[in-house]
Amino acid sequence: MLSARSNQIQAWAFLDSDHALAQARAADELRLSGQPIGPLHGVPVGIKDIFDTSDMPTENGSVLHAGRTPSRDATVVARLRAAGAVIMGKTVTTEFAYFAPGKTRNPHNREHTPGGSSSGSAAAVAAEMVPLALGSQTNGSTIRPAAFCGVVGFKPTYGLISRHGILTLSRTLDHVGLFARTVDDIALLAEQLVGYDEGDPDTRARARIPFVEVAAAEPPLPPMFAFVKTPHWERADDETKEGFAELVEQLGDRVEEIELFPSAAEAWEWHKTIMDAEMAVNLAREYETGRDRLSEQLRALIERGREVRAVGYQRALAQIRPIHESFVELFEQRYDAILTPAAPGAAPKGLASTGDPAFCTLWTLCGMPALSLPLLQSANGLPLGVQLVGPRDGDARLLRTARWLAAQVAAS
Amino acid sequence: MLSARSNQIQAWAFLDSDHALAQARAADELRLSGQPIGPLHGVPVGIKDIFDTSDMPTENGSVLHAGRTPSRDATVVARLRAAGAVIMGKTVTTEFAYFAPGKTRNPHNREHTPGGSSSGSAAAVAAEMVPLALGSQTNGSTIRPAAFCGVVGFKPTYGLISRHGILTLSRTLDHVGLFARTVDDIALLAEQLVGYDEGDPDTRARARIPFVEVAAAEPPLPPMFAFVKTPHWERADDETKEGFAELVEQLGDRVEEIELFPSAAEAWEWHKTIMDAEMAVNLAREYETGRDRLSEQLRALIERGREVRAVGYQRALAQIRPIHESFVELFEQRYDAILTPAAPGAAPKGLASTGDPAFCTLWTLCGMPALSLPLLQSANGLPLGVQLVGPRDGDARLLRTARWLAAQVAAS
Repeated sequence: MLSARSNQIQAWAFLDSDHALAQARAADELRLSGQPIGPLHGVPVGIKDIFDTSDMPTENGSVLHAGRTPSRDATVVARLRAAGAVIMGKTVTTEFAYFAPGKTRNPHNREHTPGGSSSGSAAAVAAEMVPLALGSQTNGSTIRPAAFCGVVGFKPTYGLISRHGILTLSRTLDHVGLFARTVDDIALLAEQLVGYDEGDPDTRARARIPFVEVAAAEPPLPPMFAFVKTPHWERADDETKEGFAELVEQLGDRVEEIELFPSAAEAWEWHKTIMDAEMAVNLAREYETGRDRLSEQLRALIERGREVRAVGYQRALAQIRPIHESFVELFEQRYDAILTPAAPGAAPKGLASTGDPAFCTLWTLCGMPALSLPLLQSANGLPLGVQLVGPRDGDARLLRTARWLAAQVAAS
Repeated sequence: MLSARSNQIQAWAFLDSDHALAQARAADELRLSGQPIGPLHGVPVGIKDIFDTSDMPTENGSVLHAGRTPSRDATVVARLRAAGAVIMGKTVTTEFAYFAPGKTRNPHNREHTPGGSSSGSAAAVAAEMVPLALGSQTNGSTIRPAAFCGVVGFKPTYGLISRHGILTLSRTLDHVGLFARTVDDIALLAEQLVGYDEGDPDTRARARIPFVEVAAAEPPLPPMFAFVKTPHWERADDETKEGFAELVEQLGDRVEEIELFPSAAEAWEWHKTIMDAEMAVNLAREYETGRDRLSEQLRALIERGREVRAVGYQRALAQIRPIHESFVELFEQRYDAILTPAAPGAAPKGLASTGDPAFCTLWTLCGMPALSLPLLQSANGLPLGVQLVGPRDGDARLLRTARWLAAQVAAS
């Protein structure tokens, strides 16, 4: 069955069933031997093809890296193996996790994009090929495909999960992203991945976060939501606007619409400056040696990035902290989570584009934890994502809030 | 006596004897009341005029900031007060702690520069107006004036001492600098200043460093030195070359000359890129509103900095870690400290320039602790500084090594 679905959805960049079966058999033997087993014992996980794996190619969605076979696992892949997971295969990414689409189709309607850049991870979870998958997010690459494919997507706080051994686009903006079908599964996966790693200088030593326990708990009070339209509300389609109007009505006095403060409106410009400038450095070799084999979009980005001035770049970096701090006040004073669309609408028709990340940009820039829940639906039966956002380091509580919201909507 | 010396040396940008006396009297009263007193009780300290002080002007060495009276103390000034110190006054800085000289003269020969940018702090300690002073270093602004004025200068590890409330030139390169007449006094001063400060995001929480205790201890083995000429040895004058030849001979098997690895030779270019680009941002308002009242040198730097590309700036930043790591290996394998000149020679004649920071640049870029000891002398009786450098976070041990070296030279 898996291979039939696989052929239709094209979620995999690399899938070796024999190798996956061998891992599963080894897991079985370990269990039968009576030795201690990990919390993900035998669970198959899909890994976006920008995460290095020692036993599978990692081609970063580009012909320039075709046949690339790293000798070491990315830190998070090693952590998954240590937790007993079976590394099922490598999932399709857009070209260098930027915009140019891969071959993956949306499992809900194969004429529609699965979103990107973590296209294969979202689709593989949605098509029930794997219960868990890893992706990444530099703008909207986890939240958007999760929304389009109707699964739960989670981008944790900046620096919570190591990016060592993963394609670097932007040290400032890159995050590991998580996919599952339930919030509980997201919590289980997150708990295995979080932690300091000297290979990623932006991770920090911190106490273990009891994701599973916190996510499963009942909130002491019904959570309070801040509905944020963002300055890009006009991009949202009518179905999204109506869906959110109904959701807000349903939540009653548990939600209030708030306006973003003016400085946040510039976040999209700051994000672009940083992403352009940092990707221009990190993909400099690819540009210099193979620019004719890059997509036009990526080439244009790198060329923009090469022109960015250091003064503008520094000014953009300097905005992150004050913008995030303004949100911290909001959370401290009144709200458990921000409620906002995951994307302007359902997955667009066609495979030429992976859709618009505008509803993710601000939260990615600020390194705030964000989660997409498949709570709404478009008239043509495609999922519409509801995004929840919390303050930095409020990840476990955000999962708890999300679980509450999912139960609330299901009960209505 | 103080005012007679003051008039000759011109170390002070602001000195209010009555206010200093009032602080001293308050300190006396506290002591007599039997209340607990701090480790710097009643000790007068000179503060470079780029550190904010709530009770004195802070003019940053520029007419553009004339009459500026901040309402709060810089974190380190507050720490000094808490330790019982008397804030004696504000010492002369070059224009915005860059190159254009202030009015200060070298106490050893008033026709010679005291060095810069912490000119007044070095001169005030050398002229025995105060036993301790604070300065800063973004390139060679502590080590060079300490060497020229014949005092001990210390630039600790990057991030060890908060820069909150101090003029920012370059977040990546700015350090607080310390001046005293002995290594023991440097240790006492450092011990009061080190520590995490949420106002400076580059400081880190860490265990208290017992500077005084470690600095006063005898090394378990005689230290081993790595003599480094740097790629700029041809700038050193004959007296410096001869002085170091004698010092190396005297140290015998405790010193070995080593070559820098090739990547370190580019450090001067990386430093320049970072300093130009970051100062262009941090002095943007001064440039935009008063460029005609900036020195030509500073205007030129800002104009260069505005042209730096973000890609070049990021590449420069990315070099710091690997260059420092190569040094770490050296220290782990064999050496206690690097031995190198503090400056190309003694203080140059004339007040139009503050001298050449080239022998400081590499260590400032890497955030390594550096210390200048007044161990040598030029034929015209001016001091020549010997610089010791350690690995990051090896500050206390570096002071111990310095104390050993000073005693060794004194005994010979």
